[in-house]
Amino acid sequence: MKKFMDEDFLLSTETARRLYHDYAEKLPILDYHCHIRPQEIAEDKRFDNLAQIWLGGDHYKWRQMRSNGVEERCITGDAPDREKFQKWAETLERAIGNPLYHWSHLELRRYFGYQGVLNARTAQDVWDLCNEKLQGEEFSARGLIRASHVSLLCTTDDPADDLRWHRLLREDKSFEVQVLPAFRPEKAMNIAAPGFAEYVSRLGAAADVGVQSFAGLKTALSRRMEFFHELGCRESDHSLDYVMYEPAADAEIEAIFAKALRGEAVSYGEELKYKTAFLLFAAGEYRRLGWVMQLHYGVKRDNNRRLFCTVGADAGIDCINDYTPSASLAEFLNALNEREALPRTILYSLNPADNAAIGTVIGCFQDSECAGKLQQGSAWWFNDHKQGITEQLTSLANLGLLGNFIGMLTDSRSFLSYTRHEYFRRILCDLIGGWVENGEYPDDEEALSAIVQDVSYRNAVRYFRFLGI
Amino acid sequence: MKKFMDEDFLLSTETARRLYHDYAEKLPILDYHCHIRPQEIAEDKRFDNLAQIWLGGDHYKWRQMRSNGVEERCITGDAPDREKFQKWAETLERAIGNPLYHWSHLELRRYFGYQGVLNARTAQDVWDLCNEKLQGEEFSARGLIRASHVSLLCTTDDPADDLRWHRLLREDKSFEVQVLPAFRPEKAMNIAAPGFAEYVSRLGAAADVGVQSFAGLKTALSRRMEFFHELGCRESDHSLDYVMYEPAADAEIEAIFAKALRGEAVSYGEELKYKTAFLLFAAGEYRRLGWVMQLHYGVKRDNNRRLFCTVGADAGIDCINDYTPSASLAEFLNALNEREALPRTILYSLNPADNAAIGTVIGCFQDSECAGKLQQGSAWWFNDHKQGITEQLTSLANLGLLGNFIGMLTDSRSFLSYTRHEYFRRILCDLIGGWVENGEYPDDEEALSAIVQDVSYRNAVRYFRFLGI
Amino acid sequence: MKKFMDEDFLLSTETARRLYHDYAEKLPILDYHCHIRPQEIAEDKRFDNLAQIWLGGDHYKWRQMRSNGVEERCITGDAPDREKFQKWAETLERAIGNPLYHWSHLELRRYFGYQGVLNARTAQDVWDLCNEKLQGEEFSARGLIRASHVSLLCTTDDPADDLRWHRLLREDKSFEVQVLPAFRPEKAMNIAAPGFAEYVSRLGAAADVGVQSFAGLKTALSRRMEFFHELGCRESDHSLDYVMYEPAADAEIEAIFAKALRGEAVSYGEELKYKTAFLLFAAGEYRRLGWVMQLHYGVKRDNNRRLFCTVGADAGIDCINDYTPSASLAEFLNALNEREALPRTILYSLNPADNAAIGTVIGCFQDSECAGKLQQGSAWWFNDHKQGITEQLTSLANLGLLGNFIGMLTDSRSFLSYTRHEYFRRILCDLIGGWVENGEYPDDEEALSAIVQDVSYRNAVRYFRFLGI
Repeated sequence: MKKFMDEDFLLSTETARRLYHDYAEKLPILDYHCHIRPQEIAEDKRFDNLAQIWLGGDHYKWRQMRSNGVEERCITGDAPDREKFQKWAETLERAIGNPLYHWSHLELRRYFGYQGVLNARTAQDVWDLCNEKLQGEEFSARGLIRASHVSLLCTTDDPADDLRWHRLLREDKSFEVQVLPAFRPEKAMNIAAPGFAEYVSRLGAAADVGVQSFAGLKTALSRRMEFFHELGCRESDHSLDYVMYEPAADAEIEAIFAKALRGEAVSYGEELKYKTAFLLFAAGEYRRLGWVMQLHYGVKRDNNRRLFCTVGADAGIDCINDYTPSASLAEFLNALNEREALPRTILYSLNPADNAAIGTVIGCFQDSECAGKLQQGSAWWFNDHKQGITEQLTSLANLGLLGNFIGMLTDSRSFLSYTRHEYFRRILCDLIGGWVENGEYPDDEEALSAIVQDVSYRNAVRYFRFLGI
Repeated sequence: MKKFMDEDFLLSTETARRLYHDYAEKLPILDYHCHIRPQEIAEDKRFDNLAQIWLGGDHYKWRQMRSNGVEERCITGDAPDREKFQKWAETLERAIGNPLYHWSHLELRRYFGYQGVLNARTAQDVWDLCNEKLQGEEFSARGLIRASHVSLLCTTDDPADDLRWHRLLREDKSFEVQVLPAFRPEKAMNIAAPGFAEYVSRLGAAADVGVQSFAGLKTALSRRMEFFHELGCRESDHSLDYVMYEPAADAEIEAIFAKALRGEAVSYGEELKYKTAFLLFAAGEYRRLGWVMQLHYGVKRDNNRRLFCTVGADAGIDCINDYTPSASLAEFLNALNEREALPRTILYSLNPADNAAIGTVIGCFQDSECAGKLQQGSAWWFNDHKQGITEQLTSLANLGLLGNFIGMLTDSRSFLSYTRHEYFRRILCDLIGGWVENGEYPDDEEALSAIVQDVSYRNAVRYFRFLGI
Repeated sequence: MKKFMDEDFLLSTETARRLYHDYAEKLPILDYHCHIRPQEIAEDKRFDNLAQIWLGGDHYKWRQMRSNGVEERCITGDAPDREKFQKWAETLERAIGNPLYHWSHLELRRYFGYQGVLNARTAQDVWDLCNEKLQGEEFSARGLIRASHVSLLCTTDDPADDLRWHRLLREDKSFEVQVLPAFRPEKAMNIAAPGFAEYVSRLGAAADVGVQSFAGLKTALSRRMEFFHELGCRESDHSLDYVMYEPAADAEIEAIFAKALRGEAVSYGEELKYKTAFLLFAAGEYRRLGWVMQLHYGVKRDNNRRLFCTVGADAGIDCINDYTPSASLAEFLNALNEREALPRTILYSLNPADNAAIGTVIGCFQDSECAGKLQQGSAWWFNDHKQGITEQLTSLANLGLLGNFIGMLTDSRSFLSYTRHEYFRRILCDLIGGWVENGEYPDDEEALSAIVQDVSYRNAVRYFRFLGI
């Protein structure tokens, strides 16, 4: 029996251990997609206790606490932090096989040096130990990022944002890690959402353009992209129900846009046409600027309306939306490709049943711009666990070139989530090591070390073309 | 090489063996969902031969015999029992990897003490041995249930049923196992099926209510629920194409209902609206009564019309229906939750590709009513095999709290199917044991034994709140 | 650690090795579905170099080269063969876990006796070695087929084809391997495709029937089937988006057909009705003739229109189409079964998520015509890899009788692809061997050797009823 989470955690063969410890473990982290607030880095935020840093905004943990019958008061409510933490410790004990079990213990080991097991009985010890450590200098936001060996990270930002924290960080020579914005024009795209017209006006103001038409919006967006670009941004992010393709003439799009600006209701069909037009335009701009486009889809958000009304968005009440047709995805990519407007693109579906479909779609649009121009993103959100990661890697390997994969991201709001990169790299090395030990790939140190290092770090460096890295 | 189906069948690690033999194996069975006819228990049915008890109503076996090219005469027809049994033995030999191979041999071992292999050559020996044993006292319906260490079982019953066999069983002090009804109002829900109006009238009579409207039907249903409740019923069961959500005003539902009562055709859209209204009402009542709601969906039944016309329903001619949108499932649950009418609910889809979607949907609606208020049901029907069970358990673990799972049921018409609980528990212990031995969960006897016993038995006891258990 | 691709490649247990080497390995190959051009066999085609035989028409390899950022010039363009080969060698090195890695090395070992690893550094040696060997007598089309121990192969042919190469091959007593046509009436079915009317006229001419109506088309098709039948054809093949079922009256079908003949546009709804009628008719004829019907579906073809315009069809730009409803599949099969017109049928979906649905649908329509009348085809195209094959076999075993499976086909344009049968048989033996060693099936040499030989070869012989085999 292997010891619980020892140094060879998840590494079941000699080759896996060698690949991990000799190569993957040593590399820095390029966290190209996260949800950390740049203000917290700029202000070098500190945390009073373990509940704050662990339970403050982590809807993954909230979900599990609700699954354990914990009252909302002890989750997002006003119960004392110590009580919330106790409830979390009790919950964790039941979470056998869950990635949170692994993530939590990796975080306790790597950041706090705690080698034991967190459960209801040890909760007080862990609370005391960690809270004491949290007082130390190195447990600030920047300290944790540094300790995690991060070379660069990208936040997620609204086009209307003034990026003041990013500008501050850029000028601050005391922090050597690059913190870059990513462009997420969700509000400009969600034409049917309340507040759309108001948002458009705010975006216009930020771009110094009076937006009266979709053409005007495009001008405003382009200006904001230029602004983001100057601050080092090289990627965008979109959250979609699914990748639709409902082309329409410019005049029709303008009419739909005008309706929305007037505050009139937009039908679902019109919404799809507008979003198609929006995305075709935005993708072309990304390509022009040399950016990467990320498309996240297959989510149905905010399902529990009662909880949404009290807790708000990102409350842990989202689920997989299994309507994610590969046909419209392929048609959308083809439309971009036909007008030579297809940027480097990463596709993430929340539905793990989509792995094979995505793997075959991206294979249709690869070209000589670069190795792996189209990517399937790393196992995302609900799939970010040993099985999900293994399945995504295996699917990539079955259908394409695993060696060209750009690898892992945290997608997290927390400063402790960098251990997810460790988790991913261990699984990657275990998978590859298993193949080698089973005679499915040669025991060729040169080829293997190249693949492991590329997927762990170097492919992402080459793919995104951030400056100065 | 492990011996075929020895005492450590499916238990591949030391930890798995310990968890199974020290904990799981010893627990009684709470079979909260089966299709045994209560009359057969009340009358303590006996069986003449192995063909009768094995092939009499088992459409799982019929399917495989047809797959082996066996004539219908030897399946559901009038061939002699011995001949049917021979054809089954020949079929079984080809069923490598099929759960029927395992179930059949587990049943031969546990009930008949036969340790060999059933095939065409041993069929006569098995026939003789088992038929002799079947003459023994302990091979009656009640004897088999007792020998299986069942503490409680739930049948599946029509709301119009007078539950006379359940009443008899309740009064019969000679049988200590609780046999409870479950409420399955399928005929009252299937508004587009032939005979609907007639059924409604019969249900009204059972409830002593003249049903002229949907409001009247609701009154009748509530009365029947109370009647079932008095007899110990604590759960309902629904069979749906998929979990729809098509809300409509009361007046529209009444108009649809009136059409159906007049014998007029109801459109598919109207059917969906009626079923939505029906289920919203029923769920609210279940919650009021503290019942559990089971939703089974993703099935297309009676596909082979020629066979259906000769053999009837449950002939082994059903298949997976892969139209099972997660979006309407989430909307339906939200509608219940918004009106505070969401009962404890178990979701079962026949499509194994739905595992992850279900796992994420239930996570949106958990609350402090109890641990694991919403459950994904155990791998169902076509998924009830080593891979299906493993995948369902793994998906639960990835997405929620495996420790809170209410575990296995037989879903069977047979008195020999209780070995499916053994099969399930072995797979559960193997999965958990594998994690522990691989360093993915601590080797903590207290936590592990609690989880194994909870999933095998104790969670179901707590969840259903049956009286006297 | 196992050596890379040694004689026990993919065989991880003693039982697996025994089953493979003692039984599976020794059997000939019945390749019942491939895309080899019969002309190349008739003319006994030879190859100048490894690029020609490997890269000439292999869109699987083209896709991966594009994924590696290779220019189209070095893929389907006019770059020198040696340069193309180098690019392929560089690509292959990144394809860890991909079936092409295994297939390529199996082909190098089995046909060329090369035991090393192909990569950028060894490419020159491999090029020299293989090109020299290709000059040998035994490296002609026929030599490779003979060396592969093929007993019979079926090409894929248009109903209007005069089958002259098949007739020549039949008369040529110097080649002992049977080469038979398969009937693929795709162009007669694709009523909405450009050139439909012209094709119908060509088909009519081939059948000596003036086709002015759908009734006329049916006459022409039947005549062509008779012609194919005389040349030994016993199977058809259809490529569908999905298996639709949109029944319509004869008059409506005739009206749709008349529109198409006049060159008028046919709507998507009309197309589905026509295809349904076409397939119902064709299936009935297949049954009358004792043929096997193959339905391939779940593909979206030619997605990259820019590449399609330059390279054409089969350019490596196809993807999985995930709209493949099980409901219409079941309804279509039932419609055939009700009119006693259901032939032996093999279903292949490109979407691996369909495995379980297909496995349950075929179980509804099995009957005593033969064991395994309905089959799920072997893991197809993008699923033709270790995981895909294992999953398809496991799904078959879970849901039906694996022992009755008709097994593998190459589906290839290449004379080197017969090693895919070896690949499949190794995976089959490993799966079965694993079950036996794990105590899940008895270590019964008689039963095991029968199953392995049946699935590898003998079931296909019995199923297709080709003459003289």
